[in-house]
Amino acid sequence: MGDLLERQGLDFTLPDLARESGVATATVYRHFDDMHELRAEFYNQIVDDLLDAFRETSRGFRGIELFRRIGEAWLSTSRRWVKAATFIRSAEGFLQRVNAGDPLSAGLHEVLAPVIQDLIDDGVIPPQDLRYAVLIWTTLFDERIIVDLRTTLEWSEETVAGQLGETVLAALRAPKLPNTESTP
Amino acid sequence: MGDLLERQGLDFTLPDLARESGVATATVYRHFDDMHELRAEFYNQIVDDLLDAFRETSRGFRGIELFRRIGEAWLSTSRRWVKAATFIRSAEGFLQRVNAGDPLSAGLHEVLAPVIQDLIDDGVIPPQDLRYAVLIWTTLFDERIIVDLRTTLEWSEETVAGQLGETVLAALRAPKLPNTESTP
Repeated sequence: MGDLLERQGLDFTLPDLARESGVATATVYRHFDDMHELRAEFYNQIVDDLLDAFRETSRGFRGIELFRRIGEAWLSTSRRWVKAATFIRSAEGFLQRVNAGDPLSAGLHEVLAPVIQDLIDDGVIPPQDLRYAVLIWTTLFDERIIVDLRTTLEWSEETVAGQLGETVLAALRAPKLPNTESTP
Repeated sequence: MGDLLERQGLDFTLPDLARESGVATATVYRHFDDMHELRAEFYNQIVDDLLDAFRETSRGFRGIELFRRIGEAWLSTSRRWVKAATFIRSAEGFLQRVNAGDPLSAGLHEVLAPVIQDLIDDGVIPPQDLRYAVLIWTTLFDERIIVDLRTTLEWSEETVAGQLGETVLAALRAPKLPNTESTP
C-alpha cells in the first residue's frame, strides 16, 4: 500500500490495490470498507511505527540527548513510508486531534511533552506551554518537509535530523508574547 | 466553494457544488473538468489573494517591520478561507514546487526571500540559505497551524501572527550545521 501511495498518491482504487497485492478484489473489500478506511489504517500503522521507535529510543535517555535521538529515530523510522505519508495528511490540526482524544496524536504528545519538560527543567529552553512546543516540533518534522529537504536540497538523513533539530530548539527559545496563556 | 470545503472537506461532488451555488449542474461541469481542477482553481485563488496582500503591505516597508506586517497580513487575508485551505494542501514539498516552477509557490518565494535577505543584512538573523529560511517561514504559518492556534488554544488573530512571527525569527537563529550547503 505504501508503494502505491508513493507512486500514485490517492489516485488509486481498491481494485488497483488488489492487483498490486496479488489478491482477489473481494478480499481487499473485505479488509477495507472504502479508501477512507484504508488511509486511516495506513495512518495508524505509521504513527504506531513512530511511537514504538520513540519509546524504544527513550530507554535510558533524557533531556537534550533524548531530543536529538528522537530526531534521528524520526528520520530513520519514517524512511520507508515518509513519501507515501505526504498523501494522507489529516486536515485537522495536531492539537485539535490531541484534544479530541485521537489516540495517535495523543500518543505523540504523550511521548514528546516530557522531553520538552526536561529541556525546560535543564534550562535549555525557557518555560512555555508544552502543547505549543510539541506542535512546533511535530510541524517542523512534518513528512513533507523531510521529503523536501532530502530530495530538493539533497541533504542526508543525518543532516535533516540535525538541522531540523537545531531549528526546533531555536524556535522554542522564542520570547513568549502576552495573551498566549490559555486553559489546558 | 470555500463554504463547502469548510463544511464537508473534499466529500462533495460537482452536483453538490451546483446546488450550493444555485446554478445548473451542467454549468458547473463547463467550468470544472473534475474535482481536481476545482481544487486547483481554489488553490490558485487563495495564493493570489495572499501574494496580492503581501505585495500591498510591502510598499514603503522593509526588514523586521515588513516581516511583522506580512505575518499580520497572512492572518487577516486568510481569515475567509484558512479553514477550507486545510483540505486542499498539496502533497508536494514547497521547495519542490518552487523548483518545478509552480508560479504560486515561486511567487511566495519571490516575495518572502528578499525580506529574509533584509533580516540577514540588518543582523537580525545570521547568514543562511534563503530557501531553507522561506521553507521554515511558510511551514510555521501553515493554514493547519493557524486554525489549530485560533480554535484549539483560542488565541486572537493578533496573538497568532505575533507568536508565530517570534517563533519563525527564533527558528532562523538556529546554528547552521555543516553539510547543509547545496547548489541553488
